[in-house]
Amino acid sequence: MRENFTSLDGFADILRALPGPDATAQAAARARDAVLTKPPGALGQLEDLAAWYAGWRSDARPEIRQPQVIVFAGNHGVTARGISSFPAEVTAQMVQNFQAGGAAINQLAKLNGARMDVVALELDRPTADFTKGPAMSEAEVVQALQAGWDAVDAQADLLVTGEMGIGNTTSAAAIALALFGGDAADWAGAGTGLDASGVSLKAQVVEEGVAMNPEARGNGLKALQCLGGRELAAMAGAIMRARCLRIPVILDGFICTAAAACLEAAEPGALDHCVAGHMSAEAAHGALLGKLGKCPLLSLGMRLGEGSGAALALGILKGAVACHSGMATFSEAGVSEG
Amino acid sequence: MRENFTSLDGFADILRALPGPDATAQAAARARDAVLTKPPGALGQLEDLAAWYAGWRSDARPEIRQPQVIVFAGNHGVTARGISSFPAEVTAQMVQNFQAGGAAINQLAKLNGARMDVVALELDRPTADFTKGPAMSEAEVVQALQAGWDAVDAQADLLVTGEMGIGNTTSAAAIALALFGGDAADWAGAGTGLDASGVSLKAQVVEEGVAMNPEARGNGLKALQCLGGRELAAMAGAIMRARCLRIPVILDGFICTAAAACLEAAEPGALDHCVAGHMSAEAAHGALLGKLGKCPLLSLGMRLGEGSGAALALGILKGAVACHSGMATFSEAGVSEG
Repeated sequence: MRENFTSLDGFADILRALPGPDATAQAAARARDAVLTKPPGALGQLEDLAAWYAGWRSDARPEIRQPQVIVFAGNHGVTARGISSFPAEVTAQMVQNFQAGGAAINQLAKLNGARMDVVALELDRPTADFTKGPAMSEAEVVQALQAGWDAVDAQADLLVTGEMGIGNTTSAAAIALALFGGDAADWAGAGTGLDASGVSLKAQVVEEGVAMNPEARGNGLKALQCLGGRELAAMAGAIMRARCLRIPVILDGFICTAAAACLEAAEPGALDHCVAGHMSAEAAHGALLGKLGKCPLLSLGMRLGEGSGAALALGILKGAVACHSGMATFSEAGVSEG
Repeated sequence: MRENFTSLDGFADILRALPGPDATAQAAARARDAVLTKPPGALGQLEDLAAWYAGWRSDARPEIRQPQVIVFAGNHGVTARGISSFPAEVTAQMVQNFQAGGAAINQLAKLNGARMDVVALELDRPTADFTKGPAMSEAEVVQALQAGWDAVDAQADLLVTGEMGIGNTTSAAAIALALFGGDAADWAGAGTGLDASGVSLKAQVVEEGVAMNPEARGNGLKALQCLGGRELAAMAGAIMRARCLRIPVILDGFICTAAAACLEAAEPGALDHCVAGHMSAEAAHGALLGKLGKCPLLSLGMRLGEGSGAALALGILKGAVACHSGMATFSEAGVSEG
């Protein structure tokens, strides 16, 4: 397996040689499920989750012992256009809050027994305003991909990638427009709390950004470079490193999903090791999940980012795996089958 | 507060004098939420859950330290009518499985740090076949209510009531028909796995049962006596004891919700201390939750009972409370507000 890359072409080479799940382990997990002390199918989606997890871990009776949450932070030149309710300095302030343990993601990672890492990506050097040209040079996006790649703990057995970056729903909306088309207004939402005129301005900025970066249209890795932020590219890099290590991933909200969508656009099937943790209240997230064919585990009106929805969904996946691997079979328990 | 009752009228007296939430604590929790380091509303339903929990616990910054799961088990005379895919002896076998730690609910209770108790209610003495008369005498239903009442740990800070009882979706469907009307077919579903002809027979049995017990129509406590099972009555007793102790409750699936509906029918507002943990794949559960005005936290196609959906949802509630009580405020973290 290649462990580094020095260009987008090098990263694309990795995408073309991704490992798949272990069909034998997955079938063995399904066979085990069929004899657990419950009516067939009675655990619903938990059964599918357990089999999916077993396949990626090559273990018919797996456990989740070392989940990792990584929060990537970046700043965005496009904030100069006034597309966020919060000032850009909040990105760095929130990184300090993550490091001090005071953010929502800290509480959720702790609750679900996950190690949490915070990777701040050149916060004093925002990406360029993508309405004036590409957000990043190729060297910059490759560096951010590599930062994400390097942040994954090879011993982790589950990954959540989260983000913080004032302005990054605008970046995510621009990526979605570049990859999936439609109107800019379909993808631009309230973010951290814009009013209607703010959303309207944001849609205009998104449209301008995609018009200014035609090479991003339908091209996942170019969309990441031209319209993404460093934290989006880092999430993409981490998600691919996880794939190479066969570490399953829980996707978070709109921004994480937009970063992931760049991978799927570049290589169909690149997200087969990912489940959607939740559906955000950010209006376009549901549509974006639909484009990726992902069904969210939770739908609780969350729209915080940071990996919070995915970290909460980690409890569901842990529940699925705990039932699958911990339950007695009919014969072990002496229970009559139906 | 009354601590015991010797008749359904005595239990009804308790229902008429239930304590409410602490509005001051709830308002203080809302005020705290407004200054936590996140955009307003960004945690969605988690914010409402935290405020609701704070109100019932009279604590603006609460913790969940001692959740309790109780699984009640009972047997049903109506199984003589052939309305389940599993034989009645499975109830006792599954009780042994619960006691040995091998069931789904054991794994989920353990995952979420809950104490788990199992209360088997006279398994060798099934309720009467309710198509031939009342399932229980008044003395029997009162005894089952009291068993549930007594099973609640007064030190618990969260309660999940689950059940096991071959035939009890038939009982739940009959209760729903008696309380909310409609057609028997609206409330009778596949349970543990009936085919279409089995479901059709079940609907007929449900209709016969309600016709045979006219005093159950629109009368919550009579429905519980005439159409319920001991485990349903025990869940109702436990839910009311929790209310008297101001212990919030997470409702489980169709059977738990039917038992709870008897309380709401008897005293509107009796379930204000309850949230719906999940929506079951048992088709009528969504309709029943709608009658109670409850919106489920999860919808994962589960239909196992045992308290499994509620125990999984406990992780969501714990996440809500952990964020609320553990996060830093804007001023504590030095983060700029929007």
